[in-house]
Amino acid sequence: MLRITVCQLPLDIENAEGNIKLANMAIRDASSQGAKLVVLPELTNSGYVFRTLAELEERATTLNGAIIKEWESLAARLKLVLVAGLAIKDEGHFYNCSVIIDSSGLRGWYKKAHLWNDEVDFFTPGDGAPLVVDTDLGRIATMVCYDVEFTEWVRLAMLDDAVILALPTNWPDGGLPTEPTPLEAVRVQAAASQNKLVVAAADRTGVERGVAWTGSSVVADSDGVIKVIADRKKLNQIQILVADVEVPTDRKISPRNDVRADRRPDLYRGILRK
Amino acid sequence: MLRITVCQLPLDIENAEGNIKLANMAIRDASSQGAKLVVLPELTNSGYVFRTLAELEERATTLNGAIIKEWESLAARLKLVLVAGLAIKDEGHFYNCSVIIDSSGLRGWYKKAHLWNDEVDFFTPGDGAPLVVDTDLGRIATMVCYDVEFTEWVRLAMLDDAVILALPTNWPDGGLPTEPTPLEAVRVQAAASQNKLVVAAADRTGVERGVAWTGSSVVADSDGVIKVIADRKKLNQIQILVADVEVPTDRKISPRNDVRADRRPDLYRGILRK
Repeated sequence: MLRITVCQLPLDIENAEGNIKLANMAIRDASSQGAKLVVLPELTNSGYVFRTLAELEERATTLNGAIIKEWESLAARLKLVLVAGLAIKDEGHFYNCSVIIDSSGLRGWYKKAHLWNDEVDFFTPGDGAPLVVDTDLGRIATMVCYDVEFTEWVRLAMLDDAVILALPTNWPDGGLPTEPTPLEAVRVQAAASQNKLVVAAADRTGVERGVAWTGSSVVADSDGVIKVIADRKKLNQIQILVADVEVPTDRKISPRNDVRADRRPDLYRGILRK
Repeated sequence: MLRITVCQLPLDIENAEGNIKLANMAIRDASSQGAKLVVLPELTNSGYVFRTLAELEERATTLNGAIIKEWESLAARLKLVLVAGLAIKDEGHFYNCSVIIDSSGLRGWYKKAHLWNDEVDFFTPGDGAPLVVDTDLGRIATMVCYDVEFTEWVRLAMLDDAVILALPTNWPDGGLPTEPTPLEAVRVQAAASQNKLVVAAADRTGVERGVAWTGSSVVADSDGVIKVIADRKKLNQIQILVADVEVPTDRKISPRNDVRADRRPDLYRGILRK
Protein backbone atom coordinates (compact mmCIF):
# COMPACT_ATOMS: atom_id res chain seq x y z
CA MET A 1 0.00 0.00 0.00
CA LEU A 2 1.34 3.41 -0.99
CA ARG A 3 0.40 6.64 0.78
CA ILE A 4 0.02 9.48 -1.71
CA THR A 5 -0.67 13.13 -0.96
CA VAL A 6 -2.00 15.59 -3.50
CA CYS A 7 -1.74 19.20 -2.36
CA GLN A 8 -4.38 21.66 -3.53
CA LEU A 9 -2.79 25.04 -2.95
CA PRO A 10 -4.06 28.63 -3.33
CA LEU A 11 -1.18 29.86 -5.50
CA ASP A 12 -0.77 33.55 -6.25
CA ILE A 13 0.98 35.06 -9.24
CA GLU A 14 1.71 38.18 -7.12
CA ASN A 15 3.60 36.20 -4.51
CA ALA A 16 6.10 33.83 -6.08
CA GLU A 17 8.11 33.54 -2.89
CA GLY A 18 4.96 32.77 -0.90
CA ASN A 19 4.04 30.02 -3.37
CA ILE A 20 7.26 28.15 -2.68
CA LYS A 21 6.93 28.63 1.10
CA LEU A 22 3.44 27.19 0.85
CA ALA A 23 4.67 24.30 -1.30
CA ASN A 24 7.41 23.47 1.20
CA MET A 25 4.93 23.55 4.09
CA ALA A 26 2.67 21.21 2.12
CA ILE A 27 5.53 18.79 1.47
CA ARG A 28 6.48 18.68 5.17
CA ASP A 29 2.84 18.35 6.20
CA ALA A 30 2.35 15.47 3.73
CA SER A 31 5.48 13.76 4.99
CA SER A 32 4.38 14.06 8.61
CA GLN A 33 1.18 12.29 7.56
CA GLY A 34 3.25 9.45 6.15
CA ALA A 35 3.12 10.30 2.46
CA LYS A 36 5.75 8.67 0.25
CA LEU A 37 4.60 10.38 -2.93
CA VAL A 38 3.70 14.08 -2.87
CA VAL A 39 2.17 15.83 -5.86
CA LEU A 40 2.00 19.62 -6.22
CA PRO A 41 0.05 21.67 -8.79
CA GLU A 42 1.10 22.94 -12.21
CA LEU A 43 3.25 26.11 -12.21
CA THR A 44 3.70 26.02 -8.44
CA ASN A 45 6.41 28.67 -8.55
CA SER A 46 4.79 31.22 -10.80
CA GLY A 47 1.02 31.13 -10.74
CA TYR A 48 -0.80 30.94 -14.04
CA VAL A 49 -2.45 34.08 -15.39
CA PHE A 50 0.49 35.95 -16.94
CA ARG A 51 -0.12 39.31 -18.59
CA THR A 52 3.31 39.66 -20.16
CA LEU A 53 6.30 37.53 -20.96
CA ALA A 54 8.26 39.69 -18.51
CA GLU A 55 6.01 38.44 -15.70
CA LEU A 56 6.85 34.86 -16.62
CA GLU A 57 10.56 35.70 -16.95
CA GLU A 58 10.59 37.14 -13.41
CA ARG A 59 8.97 34.05 -11.93
CA ALA A 60 10.45 31.17 -13.92
CA THR A 61 13.18 29.11 -12.31
CA THR A 62 16.01 27.09 -13.88
CA LEU A 63 17.17 23.50 -13.56
CA ASN A 64 20.07 24.75 -11.41
CA GLY A 65 17.93 27.23 -9.49
CA ALA A 66 17.19 27.38 -5.76
CA ILE A 67 13.77 25.72 -5.91
CA ILE A 68 14.88 22.36 -7.30
CA LYS A 69 17.93 22.38 -4.96
CA GLU A 70 15.66 22.98 -1.96
CA TRP A 71 13.26 20.26 -3.05
CA GLU A 72 16.13 17.83 -3.59
CA SER A 73 17.22 18.26 0.03
CA LEU A 74 13.64 18.05 1.29
CA ALA A 75 13.05 14.83 -0.69
CA ALA A 76 16.32 13.36 0.58
CA ARG A 77 15.67 14.31 4.21
CA LEU A 78 12.02 13.17 4.20
CA LYS A 79 12.67 10.14 1.98
CA LEU A 80 9.83 10.83 -0.42
CA VAL A 81 9.16 11.29 -4.10
CA LEU A 82 7.99 14.74 -5.12
CA VAL A 83 6.30 15.55 -8.42
CA ALA A 84 5.61 19.23 -9.00
CA GLY A 85 4.76 21.69 -11.72
CA LEU A 86 7.26 24.49 -12.40
CA ALA A 87 7.75 27.27 -14.91
CA ILE A 88 11.30 26.64 -16.10
CA LYS A 89 13.55 28.69 -18.35
CA ASP A 90 16.04 26.63 -20.29
CA GLU A 91 18.27 27.74 -23.17
CA GLY A 92 16.22 30.86 -23.73
CA HIS A 93 12.83 29.12 -23.82
CA PHE A 94 10.12 28.92 -21.20
CA TYR A 95 8.50 25.56 -20.53
CA ASN A 96 5.50 24.48 -18.47
CA CYS A 97 7.17 21.58 -16.68
CA SER A 98 6.75 18.78 -14.24
CA VAL A 99 9.76 17.55 -12.28
CA ILE A 100 10.25 14.22 -10.53
CA ILE A 101 12.57 14.42 -7.52
CA ASP A 102 13.43 11.57 -5.16
CA SER A 103 15.96 11.15 -2.36
CA SER A 104 18.73 10.83 -4.96
CA GLY A 105 17.85 14.19 -6.54
CA LEU A 106 16.19 15.42 -9.72
CA ARG A 107 15.25 12.33 -11.71
CA GLY A 108 13.83 14.05 -14.75
CA TRP A 109 11.91 17.00 -16.06
CA TYR A 110 9.05 17.02 -18.52
CA LYS A 111 7.83 19.82 -20.81
CA LYS A 112 4.06 20.06 -21.35
CA ALA A 113 3.30 18.98 -24.91
CA HIS A 114 -0.35 20.02 -25.22
CA LEU A 115 -0.75 23.69 -24.27
CA TRP A 116 -4.01 25.21 -23.06
CA ASN A 117 -5.42 28.40 -24.52
CA ASP A 118 -3.14 31.43 -23.92
CA GLU A 119 -0.25 29.26 -22.74
CA VAL A 120 0.92 29.24 -26.36
CA ASP A 121 1.77 32.95 -25.96
CA PHE A 122 4.20 32.17 -23.14
CA PHE A 123 5.49 28.62 -23.32
CA THR A 124 7.28 26.51 -25.89
CA PRO A 125 5.53 23.13 -26.17
CA GLY A 126 7.57 20.05 -25.37
CA ASP A 127 8.26 17.51 -28.04
CA GLY A 128 9.30 14.53 -25.95
CA ALA A 129 7.23 11.66 -24.62
CA PRO A 130 5.65 11.59 -21.16
CA LEU A 131 8.41 11.33 -18.56
CA VAL A 132 8.55 7.91 -16.86
CA VAL A 133 11.17 7.09 -14.20
CA ASP A 134 11.89 4.18 -11.90
CA THR A 135 11.56 5.04 -8.23
CA ASP A 136 11.46 3.08 -4.99
CA LEU A 137 7.67 3.41 -5.17
CA GLY A 138 7.39 1.94 -8.65
CA ARG A 139 7.62 3.38 -12.13
CA ILE A 140 6.15 6.90 -12.06
CA ALA A 141 4.99 8.87 -15.09
CA THR A 142 4.26 12.55 -15.24
CA MET A 143 2.63 15.01 -17.64
CA VAL A 144 0.84 18.32 -17.10
CA CYS A 145 -2.88 19.20 -16.96
CA TYR A 146 -4.37 19.29 -20.50
CA ASP A 147 -1.91 16.55 -21.58
CA VAL A 148 -4.05 14.00 -19.72
CA GLU A 149 -7.02 14.66 -22.01
CA PHE A 150 -4.98 13.21 -24.87
CA THR A 151 -5.61 9.56 -24.34
CA GLU A 152 -2.62 8.71 -26.53
CA TRP A 153 -0.40 10.42 -23.98
CA VAL A 154 -1.55 8.33 -21.04
CA ARG A 155 -1.28 5.22 -23.21
CA LEU A 156 2.34 6.05 -23.98
CA ALA A 157 3.04 6.27 -20.24
CA MET A 158 1.37 2.90 -19.69
CA LEU A 159 3.22 1.33 -22.61
CA ASP A 160 6.42 2.60 -20.98
CA ASP A 161 5.39 0.51 -17.95
CA ALA A 162 4.28 3.31 -15.63
CA VAL A 163 2.17 2.13 -12.70
CA ILE A 164 1.53 5.60 -11.27
CA LEU A 165 0.75 8.82 -13.10
CA ALA A 166 1.44 12.00 -11.10
CA LEU A 167 -0.32 14.96 -12.67
CA PRO A 168 0.34 18.58 -11.68
CA THR A 169 -2.60 20.59 -12.98
CA ASN A 170 -4.36 23.97 -12.99
CA TRP A 171 -7.90 23.24 -14.10
CA PRO A 172 -9.67 26.48 -14.94
CA ASP A 173 -13.38 26.45 -14.16
CA GLY A 174 -15.15 26.38 -17.51
CA GLY A 175 -18.62 26.48 -15.98
CA LEU A 176 -19.49 22.82 -16.56
CA PRO A 177 -21.32 20.97 -13.78
CA THR A 178 -19.07 19.76 -10.96
CA GLU A 179 -21.64 17.42 -9.40
CA PRO A 180 -21.58 14.57 -8.68
CA THR A 181 -17.96 14.51 -9.92
CA PRO A 182 -16.15 17.30 -11.79
CA LEU A 183 -15.35 16.24 -15.36
CA GLU A 184 -11.65 16.76 -14.70
CA ALA A 185 -11.81 14.01 -12.07
CA VAL A 186 -14.00 11.87 -14.34
CA ARG A 187 -11.29 11.93 -17.00
CA VAL A 188 -8.73 10.97 -14.36
CA GLN A 189 -10.88 8.00 -13.35
CA ALA A 190 -11.16 6.90 -16.96
CA ALA A 191 -7.42 7.25 -17.57
CA ALA A 192 -6.71 5.16 -14.47
CA SER A 193 -9.14 2.36 -15.28
CA GLN A 194 -8.42 2.19 -19.01
CA ASN A 195 -4.68 1.88 -18.36
CA LYS A 196 -4.82 0.17 -14.99
CA LEU A 197 -2.55 2.65 -13.28
CA VAL A 198 -2.91 4.91 -10.26
CA VAL A 199 -3.49 8.58 -11.10
CA ALA A 200 -2.75 11.32 -8.57
CA ALA A 201 -3.69 14.83 -9.72
CA ALA A 202 -2.94 17.99 -7.74
CA ASP A 203 -4.98 21.01 -8.79
CA ARG A 204 -4.47 24.60 -7.68
CA THR A 205 -7.08 26.87 -6.16
CA GLY A 206 -7.41 30.59 -5.32
CA VAL A 207 -9.04 32.98 -7.80
CA GLU A 208 -6.23 34.64 -9.80
CA ARG A 209 -6.90 37.74 -11.91
CA GLY A 210 -10.50 36.69 -12.35
CA VAL A 211 -9.74 33.06 -13.18
CA ALA A 212 -11.22 30.41 -10.86
CA TRP A 213 -10.32 26.71 -10.79
CA THR A 214 -12.47 23.64 -10.42
CA GLY A 215 -10.40 22.51 -7.42
CA SER A 216 -10.63 18.86 -8.40
CA SER A 217 -7.48 17.34 -6.91
CA VAL A 218 -8.06 13.62 -6.91
CA VAL A 219 -6.42 10.24 -6.46
CA ALA A 220 -7.93 7.34 -8.41
CA ASP A 221 -6.76 3.78 -7.93
CA SER A 222 -5.97 1.50 -10.85
CA ASP A 223 -9.63 0.47 -11.12
CA GLY A 224 -10.54 4.13 -11.58
CA VAL A 225 -12.15 4.33 -8.15
CA ILE A 226 -11.72 7.69 -6.41
CA LYS A 227 -9.80 7.23 -3.15
CA VAL A 228 -9.81 10.92 -2.23
CA ILE A 229 -11.08 14.08 -3.89
CA ALA A 230 -10.96 17.72 -2.87
CA ASP A 231 -13.94 19.09 -0.98
CA ARG A 232 -15.64 21.68 -3.18
CA LYS A 233 -17.14 23.27 -0.08
CA LYS A 234 -13.61 24.25 0.95
CA LEU A 235 -12.64 25.82 -2.34
CA ASN A 236 -9.83 28.42 -2.07
CA GLN A 237 -8.48 26.76 1.06
CA ILE A 238 -5.37 24.62 1.35
CA GLN A 239 -6.29 20.95 1.04
CA ILE A 240 -3.67 18.29 1.76
CA LEU A 241 -5.42 15.13 0.56
CA VAL A 242 -4.16 11.73 1.64
CA ALA A 243 -4.93 8.40 -0.02
CA ASP A 244 -3.64 4.88 0.47
CA VAL A 245 -3.61 2.94 -2.78
CA GLU A 246 -2.47 -0.41 -4.07
CA VAL A 247 0.13 -0.05 -6.79
CA PRO A 248 -0.85 -2.50 -9.56
CA THR A 249 1.47 -5.36 -10.44
CA ASP A 250 -0.22 -6.25 -13.73
CA ARG A 251 -2.81 -4.93 -16.20
CA LYS A 252 -5.40 -7.66 -15.67
CA ILE A 253 -9.03 -6.63 -15.31
CA SER A 254 -10.81 -9.97 -15.64
CA PRO A 255 -9.75 -13.63 -15.66
CA ARG A 256 -9.06 -13.35 -19.40
CA ASN A 257 -8.61 -9.63 -19.98
CA ASP A 258 -5.61 -7.35 -19.73
CA VAL A 259 -5.84 -3.72 -20.84
CA ARG A 260 -2.43 -3.89 -22.44
CA ALA A 261 -2.51 -7.35 -24.03
CA ASP A 262 -6.06 -6.78 -25.35
CA ARG A 263 -4.97 -3.78 -27.40
CA ARG A 264 -4.85 -4.31 -31.15
CA PRO A 265 -2.18 -1.86 -32.31
CA ASP A 266 -2.23 -3.37 -35.82
CA LEU A 267 -5.68 -1.78 -36.14
CA TYR A 268 -4.67 1.61 -34.66
CA ARG A 269 -2.53 3.04 -37.48
CA GLY A 270 -5.13 5.70 -38.30
CA ILE A 271 -4.49 7.28 -34.92
CA LEU A 272 -1.36 8.91 -36.31
CA ARG A 273 -3.57 10.96 -38.62
CA LYS A 274 -4.13 14.66 -37.91
CA MET B 1 -31.39 19.39 -30.77
CA LEU B 2 -31.51 15.63 -31.24
CA ARG B 3 -33.73 13.32 -29.20
CA ILE B 4 -31.95 10.05 -28.40
CA THR B 5 -33.35 7.01 -26.62
CA VAL B 6 -31.23 4.33 -25.05
CA CYS B 7 -33.20 1.21 -24.13
CA GLN B 8 -32.10 -0.80 -21.10
CA LEU B 9 -33.76 -4.16 -21.59
CA PRO B 10 -33.96 -7.32 -19.44
CA LEU B 11 -32.77 -9.72 -22.14
CA ASP B 12 -33.02 -13.45 -21.61
CA ILE B 13 -30.88 -16.12 -23.27
CA GLU B 14 -33.76 -18.59 -22.78
CA ASN B 15 -36.20 -16.46 -24.77
CA ALA B 16 -34.68 -15.27 -28.02
CA GLU B 17 -38.09 -14.57 -29.56
CA GLY B 18 -39.13 -12.58 -26.50
CA ASN B 19 -35.95 -10.49 -26.74
CA ILE B 20 -36.86 -9.29 -30.23
CA LYS B 21 -40.48 -8.62 -29.24
CA LEU B 22 -39.18 -6.53 -26.35
CA ALA B 23 -36.73 -4.72 -28.64
CA ASN B 24 -39.50 -3.89 -31.12
CA MET B 25 -41.72 -2.58 -28.33
CA ALA B 26 -38.85 -0.44 -27.10
CA ILE B 27 -38.26 0.98 -30.59
CA ARG B 28 -41.94 1.90 -31.00
CA ASP B 29 -42.09 3.33 -27.48
CA ALA B 30 -38.99 5.42 -28.17
CA SER B 31 -40.45 6.65 -31.44
CA SER B 32 -43.72 7.64 -29.79
CA GLN B 33 -41.64 9.74 -27.40
CA GLY B 34 -40.08 11.51 -30.34
CA ALA B 35 -36.75 9.72 -30.52
CA LYS B 36 -34.84 10.03 -33.78
CA LEU B 37 -31.96 7.81 -32.68
CA VAL B 38 -32.69 4.59 -30.78
CA VAL B 39 -29.92 2.49 -29.27
CA LEU B 40 -30.42 -1.10 -28.11
CA PRO B 41 -28.03 -3.28 -26.06
CA GLU B 42 -25.29 -5.66 -27.20
CA LEU B 43 -26.48 -9.11 -28.35
CA THR B 44 -30.14 -8.07 -28.27
CA ASN B 45 -31.21 -11.22 -30.12
CA SER B 46 -29.30 -13.84 -28.20
CA GLY B 47 -28.56 -12.89 -24.64
CA TYR B 48 -24.99 -13.18 -23.42
CA VAL B 49 -24.08 -16.11 -21.18
CA PHE B 50 -23.67 -18.96 -23.68
CA ARG B 51 -22.75 -22.42 -22.39
CA THR B 52 -22.05 -23.98 -25.77
CA LEU B 53 -21.44 -22.89 -29.33
CA ALA B 54 -24.67 -24.66 -30.23
CA GLU B 55 -26.58 -22.20 -28.05
CA LEU B 56 -25.06 -19.32 -29.98
CA GLU B 57 -25.71 -21.05 -33.31
CA GLU B 58 -29.41 -21.42 -32.43
CA ARG B 59 -29.77 -17.75 -31.54
CA ALA B 60 -27.54 -15.96 -34.04
CA THR B 61 -29.17 -14.22 -36.98
CA THR B 62 -27.80 -13.42 -40.43
CA LEU B 63 -27.52 -10.25 -42.49
CA ASN B 64 -30.46 -11.48 -44.57
CA GLY B 65 -32.42 -12.75 -41.60
CA ALA B 66 -35.83 -11.72 -40.31
CA ILE B 67 -34.59 -9.42 -37.55
CA ILE B 68 -32.74 -6.93 -39.73
CA LYS B 69 -35.61 -7.00 -42.29
CA GLU B 70 -38.12 -6.21 -39.56
CA TRP B 71 -35.95 -3.43 -38.18
CA GLU B 72 -35.49 -1.97 -41.66
CA SER B 73 -39.25 -1.63 -42.05
CA LEU B 74 -39.63 -0.25 -38.52
CA ALA B 75 -36.88 2.34 -39.13
CA ALA B 76 -38.45 3.31 -42.47
CA ARG B 77 -41.97 3.59 -41.07
CA LEU B 78 -40.93 5.49 -37.92
CA LYS B 79 -38.25 7.55 -39.69
CA LEU B 80 -35.55 6.88 -37.16
CA VAL B 81 -32.03 5.60 -36.93
CA LEU B 82 -31.59 2.36 -35.01
CA VAL B 83 -28.30 1.08 -33.64
CA ALA B 84 -28.44 -2.35 -32.05
CA GLY B 85 -26.25 -5.20 -30.95
CA LEU B 86 -26.78 -8.57 -32.64
CA ALA B 87 -25.12 -11.97 -32.69
CA ILE B 88 -24.60 -12.54 -36.41
CA LYS B 89 -23.42 -15.60 -38.30
CA ASP B 90 -21.62 -14.78 -41.52
CA GLU B 91 -19.60 -17.12 -43.74
CA GLY B 92 -19.35 -19.72 -41.01
CA HIS B 93 -18.17 -17.34 -38.29
CA PHE B 94 -20.03 -15.81 -35.38
CA TYR B 95 -19.56 -12.11 -34.68
CA ASN B 96 -20.64 -9.85 -31.84
CA CYS B 97 -22.01 -7.03 -33.98
CA SER B 98 -23.60 -3.64 -34.01
CA VAL B 99 -25.82 -2.65 -36.93
CA ILE B 100 -26.83 0.82 -38.07
CA ILE B 101 -30.21 0.94 -39.79
CA ASP B 102 -31.97 4.05 -41.06
CA SER B 103 -35.07 4.63 -43.17
CA SER B 104 -33.11 3.58 -46.26
CA GLY B 105 -32.20 0.21 -44.72
CA LEU B 106 -29.12 -1.45 -43.26
CA ARG B 107 -26.31 1.11 -43.51
CA GLY B 108 -23.53 -1.02 -42.11
CA TRP B 109 -22.55 -3.69 -39.66
CA TYR B 110 -19.62 -3.71 -37.28
CA LYS B 111 -17.83 -6.67 -35.68
CA LYS B 112 -16.58 -6.18 -32.12
CA ALA B 113 -12.78 -5.99 -32.21
CA HIS B 114 -11.96 -6.21 -28.50
CA LEU B 115 -13.62 -9.26 -26.96
CA TRP B 116 -14.44 -9.60 -23.28
CA ASN B 117 -13.49 -12.67 -21.25
CA ASP B 118 -15.24 -15.84 -22.50
CA GLU B 119 -16.47 -14.16 -25.68
CA VAL B 120 -13.26 -15.42 -27.31
CA ASP B 121 -14.67 -18.96 -27.02
CA PHE B 122 -17.67 -18.02 -29.14
CA PHE B 123 -16.98 -15.04 -31.37
CA THR B 124 -14.41 -14.20 -34.04
CA PRO B 125 -13.00 -10.72 -33.35
CA GLY B 126 -13.50 -8.10 -36.03
CA ASP B 127 -10.51 -6.63 -37.78
CA GLY B 128 -12.04 -3.52 -39.29
CA ALA B 129 -12.19 0.03 -37.94
CA PRO B 130 -15.13 1.39 -35.95
CA LEU B 131 -18.13 1.73 -38.27
CA VAL B 132 -18.99 5.35 -39.12
CA VAL B 133 -21.87 6.25 -41.45
CA ASP B 134 -23.54 9.43 -42.62
CA THR B 135 -27.17 9.73 -41.53
CA ASP B 136 -29.76 12.49 -41.52
CA LEU B 137 -28.87 12.99 -37.85
CA GLY B 138 -25.16 13.46 -38.51
CA ARG B 139 -22.24 11.10 -38.82
CA ILE B 140 -22.81 8.17 -36.42
CA ALA B 141 -20.15 5.77 -35.21
CA THR B 142 -20.69 2.46 -33.52
CA MET B 143 -18.63 -0.12 -31.64
CA VAL B 144 -19.54 -2.64 -28.93
CA CYS B 145 -19.09 -2.57 -25.14
CA TYR B 146 -15.42 -3.29 -24.21
CA ASP B 147 -14.28 -1.59 -27.45
CA VAL B 148 -15.02 1.78 -25.86
CA GLU B 149 -12.36 1.21 -23.19
CA PHE B 150 -9.75 1.31 -25.95
CA THR B 151 -9.28 5.02 -26.28
CA GLU B 152 -7.63 4.49 -29.66
CA TRP B 153 -10.92 3.10 -30.94
CA VAL B 154 -12.99 6.14 -30.00
CA ARG B 155 -10.26 8.37 -31.42
CA LEU B 156 -10.49 6.53 -34.76
CA ALA B 157 -14.23 7.22 -34.82
CA MET B 158 -13.64 10.90 -34.08
CA LEU B 159 -10.88 11.13 -36.71
CA ASP B 160 -13.40 9.65 -39.15
CA ASP B 161 -15.58 12.68 -38.32
CA ALA B 162 -18.19 10.97 -36.16
CA VAL B 163 -20.27 13.37 -34.05
CA ILE B 164 -22.29 10.68 -32.29
CA LEU B 165 -21.12 7.33 -30.92
CA ALA B 166 -23.91 4.78 -30.40
CA LEU B 167 -22.73 1.98 -28.13
CA PRO B 168 -24.63 -1.27 -27.60
CA THR B 169 -23.26 -2.83 -24.45
CA ASN B 170 -23.64 -5.58 -21.84
CA TRP B 171 -21.68 -4.38 -18.85
CA PRO B 172 -21.24 -7.24 -16.37
CA ASP B 173 -21.21 -6.14 -12.75
CA GLY B 174 -17.63 -6.58 -11.56
CA GLY B 175 -18.38 -5.46 -8.04
CA LEU B 176 -16.81 -2.00 -8.30
CA PRO B 177 -18.63 0.92 -6.68
CA THR B 178 -21.50 2.33 -8.74
CA GLU B 179 -21.91 5.52 -6.73
CA PRO B 180 -21.96 8.37 -7.48
CA THR B 181 -21.53 7.24 -11.11
CA PRO B 182 -20.77 3.69 -12.32
CA LEU B 183 -17.31 3.50 -13.88
CA GLU B 184 -18.82 2.35 -17.16
CA ALA B 185 -20.66 5.67 -17.41
CA VAL B 186 -17.55 7.55 -16.23
CA ARG B 187 -15.60 6.13 -19.17
CA VAL B 188 -18.43 7.17 -21.50
CA GLN B 189 -18.26 10.72 -20.13
CA ALA B 190 -14.51 10.80 -20.68
CA ALA B 191 -14.81 9.43 -24.24
CA ALA B 192 -17.41 12.09 -25.04
CA SER B 193 -15.48 15.04 -23.63
CA GLN B 194 -12.06 14.00 -24.90
CA ASN B 195 -13.38 13.60 -28.44
CA LYS B 196 -16.17 16.17 -28.30
CA LEU B 197 -18.83 13.82 -29.51
CA VAL B 198 -22.15 12.63 -28.12
CA VAL B 199 -22.07 9.11 -26.67
CA ALA B 200 -25.26 7.07 -26.25
CA ALA B 201 -24.79 3.70 -24.54
CA ALA B 202 -27.55 1.12 -24.10
CA ASP B 203 -26.82 -1.52 -21.47
CA ARG B 204 -28.82 -4.66 -20.80
CA THR B 205 -30.23 -5.76 -17.47
CA GLY B 206 -31.81 -8.91 -15.99
CA VAL B 207 -29.66 -11.46 -14.13
CA GLU B 208 -28.73 -14.20 -16.63
CA ARG B 209 -27.30 -17.52 -15.42
CA GLY B 210 -25.90 -15.82 -12.37
CA VAL B 211 -24.41 -12.85 -14.22
CA ALA B 212 -25.71 -9.41 -13.21
CA TRP B 213 -25.10 -6.14 -15.09
CA THR B 214 -24.31 -2.68 -13.84
CA GLY B 215 -27.33 -1.28 -15.70
CA SER B 216 -25.50 1.90 -16.65
CA SER B 217 -27.22 3.01 -19.84
CA VAL B 218 -26.26 6.61 -20.33
CA VAL B 219 -26.26 9.51 -22.76
CA ALA B 220 -23.42 12.02 -22.42
CA ASP B 221 -23.30 15.21 -24.44
CA SER B 222 -20.16 16.34 -26.24
CA ASP B 223 -18.90 18.09 -23.08
CA GLY B 224 -19.13 14.74 -21.28
CA VAL B 225 -22.08 15.88 -19.20
CA ILE B 226 -24.59 13.14 -18.42
CA LYS B 227 -28.00 14.02 -19.91
CA VAL B 228 -29.71 10.84 -18.74
CA ILE B 229 -28.59 7.73 -16.90
CA ALA B 230 -30.42 4.57 -15.85
CA ASP B 231 -31.91 4.52 -12.37
CA ARG B 232 -30.06 1.90 -10.36
CA LYS B 233 -33.06 1.62 -8.04
CA LYS B 234 -35.00 0.17 -10.97
CA LEU B 235 -32.44 -2.45 -11.93
CA ASN B 236 -33.89 -5.44 -13.83
CA GLN B 237 -36.77 -3.33 -15.14
CA ILE B 238 -37.20 -1.97 -18.64
CA GLN B 239 -35.86 1.57 -18.83
CA ILE B 240 -36.49 3.65 -21.96
CA LEU B 241 -34.26 6.66 -21.34
CA VAL B 242 -34.77 9.84 -23.33
CA ALA B 243 -32.26 12.67 -23.77
CA ASP B 244 -32.19 15.80 -25.89
CA VAL B 245 -28.66 16.69 -26.92
CA GLU B 246 -26.91 19.19 -29.13
CA VAL B 247 -24.94 17.50 -31.88
CA PRO B 248 -21.54 19.24 -32.02
CA THR B 249 -20.53 21.14 -35.16
CA ASP B 250 -16.85 21.45 -34.27
CA ARG B 251 -14.26 20.13 -31.80
CA LYS B 252 -13.58 23.41 -30.01
CA ILE B 253 -13.39 23.39 -26.23
CA SER B 254 -11.93 26.84 -25.49
CA PRO B 255 -11.31 29.99 -27.53
CA ARG B 256 -7.96 28.54 -28.65
CA ASN B 257 -8.36 24.80 -28.12
CA ASP B 258 -9.76 22.06 -30.31
CA VAL B 259 -9.48 18.42 -29.24
CA ARG B 260 -8.65 17.34 -32.76
CA ALA B 261 -6.32 20.15 -33.87
CA ASP B 262 -4.46 20.08 -30.54
CA ARG B 263 -3.43 16.45 -31.04
CA ARG B 264 0.24 15.88 -31.83
CA PRO B 265 0.22 12.66 -33.86
CA ASP B 266 3.90 13.12 -34.71
CA LEU B 267 4.56 12.32 -31.05
CA TYR B 268 2.17 9.36 -30.85
CA ARG B 269 4.07 6.76 -32.90
CA GLY B 270 4.78 4.65 -29.82
CA ILE B 271 1.07 3.95 -29.50
CA LEU B 272 1.35 1.32 -32.22
CA ARG B 273 3.54 -0.70 -29.89
CA LYS B 274 2.15 -3.84 -28.22
